[in-house]
Amino acid sequence: MITDVKKAAELLKSNDDFLILSHANPDGDTLGCAYGLCGMLQKMGKRAKVMCADEIAPRMEFLRDTVIQQNFEEKTIVSVDVADRKLLGDLDAVYGGRIFLAIDHHESRQEFAKYTLVDSDAAAACELIFQIAEEMNAQLDGEIASCLYTGLATDTGCFKYSNTTSRTHIIAAKLMAYEFDVSGINYKLFDMKSKGRLELEQAITQGMEFFCDDRVAVVWLTTELMDRFNGRVDSEDFNGLASLPRQVEGVIIGATVKQKGPATFKISVRTAEPINAGSVCALFGGGGHARAAGCTIEGSIEFVKAKLLPVFEKALKANE
Amino acid sequence: MITDVKKAAELLKSNDDFLILSHANPDGDTLGCAYGLCGMLQKMGKRAKVMCADEIAPRMEFLRDTVIQQNFEEKTIVSVDVADRKLLGDLDAVYGGRIFLAIDHHESRQEFAKYTLVDSDAAAACELIFQIAEEMNAQLDGEIASCLYTGLATDTGCFKYSNTTSRTHIIAAKLMAYEFDVSGINYKLFDMKSKGRLELEQAITQGMEFFCDDRVAVVWLTTELMDRFNGRVDSEDFNGLASLPRQVEGVIIGATVKQKGPATFKISVRTAEPINAGSVCALFGGGGHARAAGCTIEGSIEFVKAKLLPVFEKALKANE
Repeated sequence: MITDVKKAAELLKSNDDFLILSHANPDGDTLGCAYGLCGMLQKMGKRAKVMCADEIAPRMEFLRDTVIQQNFEEKTIVSVDVADRKLLGDLDAVYGGRIFLAIDHHESRQEFAKYTLVDSDAAAACELIFQIAEEMNAQLDGEIASCLYTGLATDTGCFKYSNTTSRTHIIAAKLMAYEFDVSGINYKLFDMKSKGRLELEQAITQGMEFFCDDRVAVVWLTTELMDRFNGRVDSEDFNGLASLPRQVEGVIIGATVKQKGPATFKISVRTAEPINAGSVCALFGGGGHARAAGCTIEGSIEFVKAKLLPVFEKALKANE
Repeated sequence: MITDVKKAAELLKSNDDFLILSHANPDGDTLGCAYGLCGMLQKMGKRAKVMCADEIAPRMEFLRDTVIQQNFEEKTIVSVDVADRKLLGDLDAVYGGRIFLAIDHHESRQEFAKYTLVDSDAAAACELIFQIAEEMNAQLDGEIASCLYTGLATDTGCFKYSNTTSRTHIIAAKLMAYEFDVSGINYKLFDMKSKGRLELEQAITQGMEFFCDDRVAVVWLTTELMDRFNGRVDSEDFNGLASLPRQVEGVIIGATVKQKGPATFKISVRTAEPINAGSVCALFGGGGHARAAGCTIEGSIEFVKAKLLPVFEKALKANE
């Protein structure tokens, strides 16, 4: 059943013994929601704990400060920033069938909970948690505020992307009334790079290829290259690489081609207006948004190149 | 004479024929202030124009859209984001002695205007222009809002740095009520890199040296290296390089050593808590802030290295 912020607040207030679930391969928004909500429920005298199928990346460990894991039998299961049961990872089998309340902001999603609060205008699910907090008159503190802020910052690229709204900034302003290390969090989220990541970026950038009068840039993440970095980078270091080619001035279509198997390549496409990345990827059976989309192509590297480039060229020509 | 927002608004309302001056080597804040203020004064039916001693970087050209240069004799000269007359560059000789109103947010500054509005708690001088606009009940539009937003974003690293306050976010929220291309501006300010800049970053990163158990990172911008990029990068491409070494995980002190002459090196130091960059640079006759400072050392590269490293090591030891 679809619910609203007011009702979601009531549901949380009138229940107890919460288990809050993040999606697998967790990012700052799902974790910020989970630990922020957990902290405020505990401050209301309730029992609450957080669970996630996967490890938390070291740079987001600080979010954990808000919560003391407690031994109690979970009665009320809440999922945060989870668009589909399957995204719970290993937790789906155990909890996926009995989610009481799902709080989410994804446009395309699967219904799986008894109650669902969804607002796709929210830049981050943490915006919804904040609205619920206001509705519940929940007490916040610096730690809870830092969790919710982390969600906003993560999903907006620190207020940089087009999903950022006035509301996002107003919530950030209200959260900053509490004391926490804003610039320290942003350093960890956006600026800090491991030595391995730095070298990986260099290797990838060195191999960047330009086509169509430098309006198309392609980088290749072959298994050979990834193997070279084995042990020097962790899985987190592979995040966000898809944005590299589009950063080059003049590039309208940026593609990151990641080898998934001997003859399987996953392509992430990022575009500038007016090229629609989703339409381009749909030609290969993929999909996504106007500025960011993806698809998979089976074949050799040469085959992938021979398939992609004419499509990119045609898309550019059609929009000249 | 020191003045406040209310009085500054009155001064602007009761005068006309404005010449608004940006500082030389202009950034997004000084230009955002100048074109934003110019636009709102024109909307009030006044004559106003902007002047700057130096060229505007191509990525900030869009700010110019707000203003139509007009032929009139300037009567009221206003400087924005200018901490010292000298920073007006070539315009100082002509106008520096007769500034009517200076609007600024720098902590250490020289008085040079008849009236001065200064607030060092403002993350950007554009915060002050916005406050004046509210006080004047000035009409804004998307173009004026995009100018003021550009100032906020520029000086806070898109709301990332510790100078960002609740007020900064509230002003951003109010500006976003007008229609302008927020993500497009942020792409130009923060993500877009020329091919030359990309190669320059690679060359610099490849030469990055680590010391003191990887807690110190140093990059070298020798004239030999800079000459290699002659014609492929412009002066703007050298901005922001000082933050590169500190981005590496675990680095507490990052230094960028830029060759200014055969035996003259300018060192930019960036530190993490608790190391005070200003104190470190003061040992070499330089200075600055706690997290960012600079100094100049005369001698060979080897001499610079032999001077810097023991000081860095000592600072780390003293804070262990």
